[in-house]
Amino acid sequence: MKSKKTPPPDFDLLFNPKSIALIGASNNIAKWGAIVFLNILLGGYQGRVYPVNPGEEQIFGHRVYTKVSQIPDPVDLAIIAIPAHLVMEAVLDCIRKEIHMAIVITSDFSETGEEGARLEKELTELARASKMRLVGPNTMGIFSASANLTALMPPVRPRAGNVSIVSQSGNIGTQILAWGEKFAVRFNKYVSSGNEGDLRSEDYLSFFGKDPETKVILTYIEGLEDARRFFETAKAITPFKPIVAFKGGRTVAGARAAKSHSGSMAGARELYEAAFRQAGIVWASTTEEMLELAAAFSFFPLPRGNRIGILTRGGGWGVIAADACMEMGLEVPPLDDALIRALDKILPSYWSKGNPVDMVASISMEDYLTCLEMLISWEKVDAVISLSGDAGPLSGILSDVKKKAEGFVAAENLERISSQILAARIQIHRRTYELIEIHKKPILAVGGSLIKGEKGAQADFSLPQFRTPERAAMAAGRLYQYSRYRSAVGAF
Amino acid sequence: MKSKKTPPPDFDLLFNPKSIALIGASNNIAKWGAIVFLNILLGGYQGRVYPVNPGEEQIFGHRVYTKVSQIPDPVDLAIIAIPAHLVMEAVLDCIRKEIHMAIVITSDFSETGEEGARLEKELTELARASKMRLVGPNTMGIFSASANLTALMPPVRPRAGNVSIVSQSGNIGTQILAWGEKFAVRFNKYVSSGNEGDLRSEDYLSFFGKDPETKVILTYIEGLEDARRFFETAKAITPFKPIVAFKGGRTVAGARAAKSHSGSMAGARELYEAAFRQAGIVWASTTEEMLELAAAFSFFPLPRGNRIGILTRGGGWGVIAADACMEMGLEVPPLDDALIRALDKILPSYWSKGNPVDMVASISMEDYLTCLEMLISWEKVDAVISLSGDAGPLSGILSDVKKKAEGFVAAENLERISSQILAARIQIHRRTYELIEIHKKPILAVGGSLIKGEKGAQADFSLPQFRTPERAAMAAGRLYQYSRYRSAVGAF
Repeated sequence: MKSKKTPPPDFDLLFNPKSIALIGASNNIAKWGAIVFLNILLGGYQGRVYPVNPGEEQIFGHRVYTKVSQIPDPVDLAIIAIPAHLVMEAVLDCIRKEIHMAIVITSDFSETGEEGARLEKELTELARASKMRLVGPNTMGIFSASANLTALMPPVRPRAGNVSIVSQSGNIGTQILAWGEKFAVRFNKYVSSGNEGDLRSEDYLSFFGKDPETKVILTYIEGLEDARRFFETAKAITPFKPIVAFKGGRTVAGARAAKSHSGSMAGARELYEAAFRQAGIVWASTTEEMLELAAAFSFFPLPRGNRIGILTRGGGWGVIAADACMEMGLEVPPLDDALIRALDKILPSYWSKGNPVDMVASISMEDYLTCLEMLISWEKVDAVISLSGDAGPLSGILSDVKKKAEGFVAAENLERISSQILAARIQIHRRTYELIEIHKKPILAVGGSLIKGEKGAQADFSLPQFRTPERAAMAAGRLYQYSRYRSAVGAF
Repeated sequence: MKSKKTPPPDFDLLFNPKSIALIGASNNIAKWGAIVFLNILLGGYQGRVYPVNPGEEQIFGHRVYTKVSQIPDPVDLAIIAIPAHLVMEAVLDCIRKEIHMAIVITSDFSETGEEGARLEKELTELARASKMRLVGPNTMGIFSASANLTALMPPVRPRAGNVSIVSQSGNIGTQILAWGEKFAVRFNKYVSSGNEGDLRSEDYLSFFGKDPETKVILTYIEGLEDARRFFETAKAITPFKPIVAFKGGRTVAGARAAKSHSGSMAGARELYEAAFRQAGIVWASTTEEMLELAAAFSFFPLPRGNRIGILTRGGGWGVIAADACMEMGLEVPPLDDALIRALDKILPSYWSKGNPVDMVASISMEDYLTCLEMLISWEKVDAVISLSGDAGPLSGILSDVKKKAEGFVAAENLERISSQILAARIQIHRRTYELIEIHKKPILAVGGSLIKGEKGAQADFSLPQFRTPERAAMAAGRLYQYSRYRSAVGAF
């Protein structure tokens, strides 16, 4: 439990520092002090960085200081990457310099045994007594989009967006950031909370809850020192902002691996799942689901009900989507006559005449977009899952014919087909975005590719693409469950 | 039900035809008659192909015949891709030519209503009366590795292996073939069974059961006309050969979409799951799982028990793997002292000293392979999940440092690092393969990439890579469940 005198953390120093001292900066790229420095520099951070290392004079073109207290200018944030036995002295020097926030990357504290735990406790008490708060120790760092700050051990470079993360595992956090591009997730703030000797998950959670730049919160939890405070904090946020959480260490073997609990943690999965539900937290049942859900909550408005329209060009895919929706507690309402008649005018005579709307052989972009608009604007659906959402069949069939037809068809025709496909794909993504905005309903697209913009990154109008109908149905189901929770607690 | 006079199908004519007549062959690449022809030609089929089309003289350099009966040489297999109302006449001509196997690609039969159903029935009876059997109608074609035959509508080009498929949805079948490269699955035979007017899933199943080239059978089912025969056929195969099955149309909405059943099919999921279990069929709960399981059964020996060793370089990943194993009914046994002492000699002092074996900062390839060998040869594990299975961290960290360090580190050093990483990755894949062979235990690798060989395809020694620890645990669980079934029925 925290002492009553604990000073409140100033998270602006952490996520928007004007200046940083990197204690343990190095020229040797096999050392974290070099890698973190390179990450910060190459990430485009615009503030001042002061490398600190008594054995160097210059690092990557920057003047080096032997101690933090020798830096002439004010320092907002210290990052500490030196051996454990030297950390106490460095923190004392930070206190002299009146630094109020530090990231302790150094490991070999409470995670390695009693002696480390004792040192960690001493460190925390020392810092707090001087109005200094600590991230870590044993953290892999932080990211902040607003400061272009990638103070990270792993060299990931997240794109700026509205999802913020706190992760109790640096490896999992890194994986989440690295998967971002694949699942169309862009990040605002990230913190690897490490051993949580001082600042804990619930502290970051509380800040993200109030942070106007954060729309969706993602958290990876292994163990909670003060579960009550965590869930109370979460419960105050979820009526306004979704929290997606994954719990590691749900079983005896998992908890043993997490080293944070004894065998008595068996059955913890059910306990946590119930606690999550009560606090309105969205449960991610797999690691990948965290990202899929972050994408869904980040991109889409909340559906007002559980009725799903399915648009497909392949019968089997439609069947699977319908099954997956029902198994997620969603409805797939039969079409009414007026909508069938309207679709009859566009689609070939042998279309499915039901929901899923199987457009069969119809592969024109215009017809697809017309069908999509009819379906999303129908008052009896709350969301649409589109299994043709990216001109998938169009680009699939045509680009493959292209590949296979080389030598049989003139090259300039193939070139023309290619640019037509890309133009059609871009138009589909843009128009789908518009339809989502106009109708305030999610359109979950399956199986297409993200469209690349500058530097090969996902273009701004590129919609997330779920891997399979099952993944889209899972996301739609969780959006609906959370929407229902918000209605129930009166915040919708 | 089949008439007693139904002639047995000669599947050698289908999967190893010496000659093929393509009825409806075309020069127009917007027509399936052209696309299928191109697929056959470019797939490397070595037999004779006779295009049939009364309106053409030459197609892609081949002489065209106006009717099948005009072809001077014997024909093993007819492929029919002409409008539905012309199919009967074409089949009559095939009968005159004494062709005993035909693939009817043409759609607009029983799937579009009563008239189509009547035509389909007439066609089937006509064919059977003359010892001719039919695939389809409304099929997307077949693939046969032994004949290099890609008689397919979609232009996929599967790699040759030991997995054979029958799919009641051509789209799903295509997706399975297309996913093959991604999930390291190579195929032997594939048939899109279409409407199953004549030959049904159980006929292909029965053949694959006896086929020495087929090690694993994959099947996508929507509806079974004769479920008893299907499950009896399966039950005779599963004591010797795994069948992985996915059922589409498990819910009211799914079944309605499959159009094969009424609302009374609700609850079919539980019925099918029970029937699968009783027949020893491996249940794939998602579309992707079909592929992951095909990879697992295709590459790995069956585990003799449920005890899993986990090897990791990241704490969080290890926790998640341990949870996922236990939730799949697997055990994660604690290490015994002898093994801990042996690992102590290799790993840094602060390694986890438990299972998961967290190798922490140890990233050398040699140490990794030594740990892997110690763990897989330990008599108390039946399989290993390796979360570092592809030099993932090695290549991840180093290649990213490379990217980020440009301008700070000499280019030739970076080049050298790159080739070292590739060489290390290749050695890890090869050695892992050897260890699987020697110890007859699965080693399921997570998160790495497939190694590319010639033409960019997966190299022969490249192991499958599961996307996440959860996916590897799922596969290990299913391998174990099937292994237990085989022991129980006395075939192991």
